[in-house]
Amino acid sequence: MKPAVILLSGGLDSATVLAIARAAGFDPYALSFRYGQRHAVELAAARQVAAAVGVTEHVIIEIDLRRFGGSALTSDLPVPKDRSLAAISDGIPSTYVPARNTLFLAYALAWAETLSATDIFIGVNALDYSGYPDCRPEFIAAFEQLANLGTAAGVGAAARAAAGADDPGRLRIHAPLIDLTKAGIIQRGLALGLDYGLTSSCYDPNPHGRPCGRCDACLLRAKGFAEVGQPDPLLARFASAAG
Amino acid sequence: MKPAVILLSGGLDSATVLAIARAAGFDPYALSFRYGQRHAVELAAARQVAAAVGVTEHVIIEIDLRRFGGSALTSDLPVPKDRSLAAISDGIPSTYVPARNTLFLAYALAWAETLSATDIFIGVNALDYSGYPDCRPEFIAAFEQLANLGTAAGVGAAARAAAGADDPGRLRIHAPLIDLTKAGIIQRGLALGLDYGLTSSCYDPNPHGRPCGRCDACLLRAKGFAEVGQPDPLLARFASAAG
Repeated sequence: MKPAVILLSGGLDSATVLAIARAAGFDPYALSFRYGQRHAVELAAARQVAAAVGVTEHVIIEIDLRRFGGSALTSDLPVPKDRSLAAISDGIPSTYVPARNTLFLAYALAWAETLSATDIFIGVNALDYSGYPDCRPEFIAAFEQLANLGTAAGVGAAARAAAGADDPGRLRIHAPLIDLTKAGIIQRGLALGLDYGLTSSCYDPNPHGRPCGRCDACLLRAKGFAEVGQPDPLLARFASAAG
Repeated sequence: MKPAVILLSGGLDSATVLAIARAAGFDPYALSFRYGQRHAVELAAARQVAAAVGVTEHVIIEIDLRRFGGSALTSDLPVPKDRSLAAISDGIPSTYVPARNTLFLAYALAWAETLSATDIFIGVNALDYSGYPDCRPEFIAAFEQLANLGTAAGVGAAARAAAGADDPGRLRIHAPLIDLTKAGIIQRGLALGLDYGLTSSCYDPNPHGRPCGRCDACLLRAKGFAEVGQPDPLLARFASAAG
């Protein structure tokens, strides 16, 4: 099995990507980050998902962005609530985190090179998403180009390609959800047996992980399950619990 | 004065870049990293250089790469010594650190967006260098493209460019040393009044910062000062001290 680094936030999208990578025969190394996010409860979800789907290793990296001060990462800006789907898809919301996916992919690239892995998976999607610039296909393509220019692995692959190798081993950034709707993502995960009750999408959950039901992430998730015609097992879990 | 983020390792190149950015009228925010480098003494040099040249703020970020294990970052691999200049410029040496400049630039980008800065300076150079893939002009160009695709700042600049703005405020990665020889770099710094005795280039210094004189970085630095026809003030400092 080929090793692959999977960015795993603990949300619905990245959990689906982990299941997809595993089903495709990759040996998954899951990578999560504690970066001062107010919804750090998603890291518990990431651990549960990693255990349930099965990974060879799960690393949680501390990103020391507090030192920059003033960053949206650590701020108490209110999370937008109750926005229409039109408003959600119009412009970049305050939940945007400067250069977040660039940082996450840079760490994934460092780990991939250490593992001699050429495959990195990320759960961005450009349809039912929140307007983040670093979730667009052109961003992913640009990072893949950067990865191959900026690493010893990429230089080696370029040399093998120039020598006519069939599979020169270029670094690849896989974004298998990029053109799926949220409903399409959920259908893929359900078909792979993924338990979405283990995942956490909310930007503003309570300390027990109960989703607020009103932020952009909750609204997009609810729309997805509604379109699939299935209840969200996460909500069922909290409906039956005190949390 | 426009704010700019300057990557400052404490070495000869990045110190020169800081002096260049300051002379060009930028308000410098210096960024250094403690990433498990065996030559962490360079961080003391970075502090001295930042104080001498003058910066608005100097942040040292902890990069938690030990979690990946097996990385060259934290290994005890021997540092190559006494290599010929031909050997130094042939291939990628064991001192290569996976994805290092991608990570450094990703952090610089996150800070720049927080500061509303559009300018990032990095001291890579592609002539007298050690064969690192992430020091090449094509890597820098790829990162600049990525930065503009992956940030709110870049999306805003693209919109202003589409509307015909003269200076849309695109993010720029400045690599003012990219086509200079080591001698040319030193001449620039000397002309700007930079004290190279404060800098530290060696990959394998003793705990007092005394350079080994035999690693690639020491050899390239010595070649540069020889071509300029000046003594290296760092060596003069240690020649007159017990360290």
